[in-house]
Amino acid sequence: MAKHTIVVLLLSIALFILTQQSLSSQPFKPISSHRAPKFLSGFSTSKLYHHHHRNHNHRRLERLRQYRYETQYFKQHLDHFSFLELPTFNQRYLISLEHWSGPDQLGPIFVYCGNEGDIEWFAANTGFVWEIAPSFGAMVVFPEHRYYGESMPFGSQEEAYKNAATLSYLTADQALADFSVLITNLKRNLSAEACPVVLFGGSYGGMLAAWMRLKYPHIAIGALASSAPILQFEDIVPPESFYDIVSNDFKRESTSCFNTIKASWNALISEGQKENGLSQLTRMFRLCRELKNTEELVNWLDSAYSYLAMVNYPYPSDFIMPLPGHPIREVCRKIDGCPDGTSILERVSEGVGVYYNHTGEVNCFELDDDPHGVNGWNWQACTEMVMPLSSSPDTSMFPTYDFNFSAFQEECWTDFKVNPRPRWITTEFGGKDIMTDLKTFGSNIIFSNGFLDPLSGGSVTQNVSDSIVALNTQEGAHHLDLRAATAEDPNWLVEQRATETRVIKKWLSDYYEAKGASLLSNVETGDRAPSM
Amino acid sequence: MAKHTIVVLLLSIALFILTQQSLSSQPFKPISSHRAPKFLSGFSTSKLYHHHHRNHNHRRLERLRQYRYETQYFKQHLDHFSFLELPTFNQRYLISLEHWSGPDQLGPIFVYCGNEGDIEWFAANTGFVWEIAPSFGAMVVFPEHRYYGESMPFGSQEEAYKNAATLSYLTADQALADFSVLITNLKRNLSAEACPVVLFGGSYGGMLAAWMRLKYPHIAIGALASSAPILQFEDIVPPESFYDIVSNDFKRESTSCFNTIKASWNALISEGQKENGLSQLTRMFRLCRELKNTEELVNWLDSAYSYLAMVNYPYPSDFIMPLPGHPIREVCRKIDGCPDGTSILERVSEGVGVYYNHTGEVNCFELDDDPHGVNGWNWQACTEMVMPLSSSPDTSMFPTYDFNFSAFQEECWTDFKVNPRPRWITTEFGGKDIMTDLKTFGSNIIFSNGFLDPLSGGSVTQNVSDSIVALNTQEGAHHLDLRAATAEDPNWLVEQRATETRVIKKWLSDYYEAKGASLLSNVETGDRAPSM
Repeated sequence: MAKHTIVVLLLSIALFILTQQSLSSQPFKPISSHRAPKFLSGFSTSKLYHHHHRNHNHRRLERLRQYRYETQYFKQHLDHFSFLELPTFNQRYLISLEHWSGPDQLGPIFVYCGNEGDIEWFAANTGFVWEIAPSFGAMVVFPEHRYYGESMPFGSQEEAYKNAATLSYLTADQALADFSVLITNLKRNLSAEACPVVLFGGSYGGMLAAWMRLKYPHIAIGALASSAPILQFEDIVPPESFYDIVSNDFKRESTSCFNTIKASWNALISEGQKENGLSQLTRMFRLCRELKNTEELVNWLDSAYSYLAMVNYPYPSDFIMPLPGHPIREVCRKIDGCPDGTSILERVSEGVGVYYNHTGEVNCFELDDDPHGVNGWNWQACTEMVMPLSSSPDTSMFPTYDFNFSAFQEECWTDFKVNPRPRWITTEFGGKDIMTDLKTFGSNIIFSNGFLDPLSGGSVTQNVSDSIVALNTQEGAHHLDLRAATAEDPNWLVEQRATETRVIKKWLSDYYEAKGASLLSNVETGDRAPSM
Repeated sequence: MAKHTIVVLLLSIALFILTQQSLSSQPFKPISSHRAPKFLSGFSTSKLYHHHHRNHNHRRLERLRQYRYETQYFKQHLDHFSFLELPTFNQRYLISLEHWSGPDQLGPIFVYCGNEGDIEWFAANTGFVWEIAPSFGAMVVFPEHRYYGESMPFGSQEEAYKNAATLSYLTADQALADFSVLITNLKRNLSAEACPVVLFGGSYGGMLAAWMRLKYPHIAIGALASSAPILQFEDIVPPESFYDIVSNDFKRESTSCFNTIKASWNALISEGQKENGLSQLTRMFRLCRELKNTEELVNWLDSAYSYLAMVNYPYPSDFIMPLPGHPIREVCRKIDGCPDGTSILERVSEGVGVYYNHTGEVNCFELDDDPHGVNGWNWQACTEMVMPLSSSPDTSMFPTYDFNFSAFQEECWTDFKVNPRPRWITTEFGGKDIMTDLKTFGSNIIFSNGFLDPLSGGSVTQNVSDSIVALNTQEGAHHLDLRAATAEDPNWLVEQRATETRVIKKWLSDYYEAKGASLLSNVETGDRAPSM
């Protein structure tokens, strides 16, 4: 199974892409805005997705077939927070009652918080939830996120993505309200009001799971938030963390590799300024079409390195690209292993081949796969999911860059005719002083992270309290823990999942105890507390 | 001060009025829908308010002048939860830095959650907050609720209340988001990010305070929610509780009084069916205009009794009506004290005079004060604040009535062209199993209640956990604790306020401790938690 282990990581790219967006807005643009859409996580519906995944589609459905579930649709309000007369839409959700122990046993309900893509894709790639459900006697529900997959307002994707007005209800709060209304209704229909709900989510879905536990504690008793960078907003974490972690992932394999890449940007720009320099670069990097400027190449390389850091798994996998295990190690082997006298640019070209052409089947490389793909995450990034990223001249191997909000804002206006609200997420969900806030309020969240994952820099990686805990792995990358177990899983991954299972069991037993105590106390007192 | 002690109670009437609305929707309407607007709490801007309070206005401002504050305006998004291009509006807030110990001392910020009325009115009538602020070194902020007072979207009340579309952003969630955005901005501007916020609120404002503590724990460390019936939704508490408590307030004074009132409805209907019966009733109850039907009279009496239960204070006060201390006792004295042979209806007429004509200055009584008053609370009741109320044939002294949602819904459609969402509040804020939910999540809320208050039946009146506590008084009515101290305060009220002050001190010291520990732990560890 290792081959398709990392498909779900596609989702995480949402956040990585945000990087690109942020970076793209500086006056001198080493990383252009036109690269950003290439990896957007909404691409399950994009040309890119279909291009790359045409072959996987069959396999994906096969994987899904292991799990018995039904596809259902639920009528949702388009706006939960106003009473404007608006058309409703159908939210898709997958549901499995196969292993559920039922309402009389207070059988738990496992809900995966769908993120920015087709829900079948998540269901197929979140094996952990399916695998632990039977031993818990749990129902499994995968609700789809509005504006993705089949859950389109206004009847179709085309209408939903028409303009800023039709897109305006694509927000995290609305998505959480969808989940809450759906779960509440489901429970009522199944007479399962007292059955405890546990949330799961990875990447943006992990952020939703954590936020939902905080905002709807009466609906879910706990949340496993895997690789959920809920602190990657405003100035909570250093904006350099993302690129610093990517850079460290290379440095730990080889300092000379790190240095070569760091030196390559100037070499590249110098080369590009020569007569016929762009043609020379086009040939050297085996691009399918002539470079228009060096910026295009910078973006293409930046993307490969950042991606590699996220999918830097200990075994072979295929995400957008088929990759070997420890892919960064392989890249650095190529870069370092060139004969003496090989130029910096030739080394880098060899290295990036591991990412773009591991199978050796590609004759030339495309620079822009999907410039016109519809993309919901771009909208989200331009409205509330404003996650500033910078690149430090000292610790990053990437071109130096300081996040520039004004430029970012301008670009969002050009693209969507919308103004970002960069402070909304921290106002709505907190984060600024999360250690103090959550120490005295809230419970039952696991924040799981792998420290190779560049998004771990924006996540919660310290224990907050007894029941809000960080579960870190030094060697893990982006939300591997949510994937189905495989024979190749290293011990630390097996242990991480076992701990997660144990913690979830504890949440449930605490709930049953509180529930029992509360029933008992109602019986005992029969009425009100003593009064003054 | 006793004379104007209860003015703030006006606000609570919102909830009582809901009663009327609910009751108004049955096919046979013993209590008509046209009475409802009479007491609506939005009436600070209504004719009724101005009529009754013209004389008090001067006094009100005088009271406000005791407190030094500034009036400010803050530009708010009309919709925090979508990115529709909408006009912003100015939210009014009152702010006092007079006693604030400042950011270096982490001086606390006391925020009153403005409810359905003019914020000056609340500020004038929430003396408790002003009185304790100096000893806490606290800043005091009174933000106004959107669509009330001067905080009108679309430039004016007329535009804001034009139709369902313009009213559609008048919701609790939007109001909470207004508070959160305002507080966050204020703190930033004052370099007070680390200063703890404590929330206060009474009646609907108390509901907002409790909900805000639950939804925005990162913004407020605790909430005093006085007379906040957050459980008066769906089937959480028996829908009979409101009228049962009113009825018990009469029964505890005198069983014969209770029985007389209970018997009066049939007597009234019989009388009304006689030839010239309506004229007879009009004369007997000294009404200014001829009764059109007995229903009008039923509503008028129901309103008086319910009101009396809410303002059943141990000392004289004037709310809409000047009243003696223990006003229900006075009503029953009148009813019971009539000479032998006095008819039931004559007794009831004597009794209700205590409410409508305590001063003896009124020559005749108006049945409908403000039938056309614009009213925000009516909108809120017809959208999300759907609080079903019924009247039991056994335990209530009122005409029997079962809440009928369909009829209610129809009426809301007629009035506003809007469909109620009766399940939204419990989905969004919980309540169905609040004892279990809050036992394992959340902290730092005081639910204070007086058991004479009919709304205490929909409030939290049991301790949930160590830090989510119920503070009940047997002899208290509607959120008296929030009012300024007076020489006439009974001991139990003095004690209740002292306990509240003590609990708030504890929240603050816990916060300072957690904050210190968190600063310390950051210094100590310097980075991430141990990983697997």
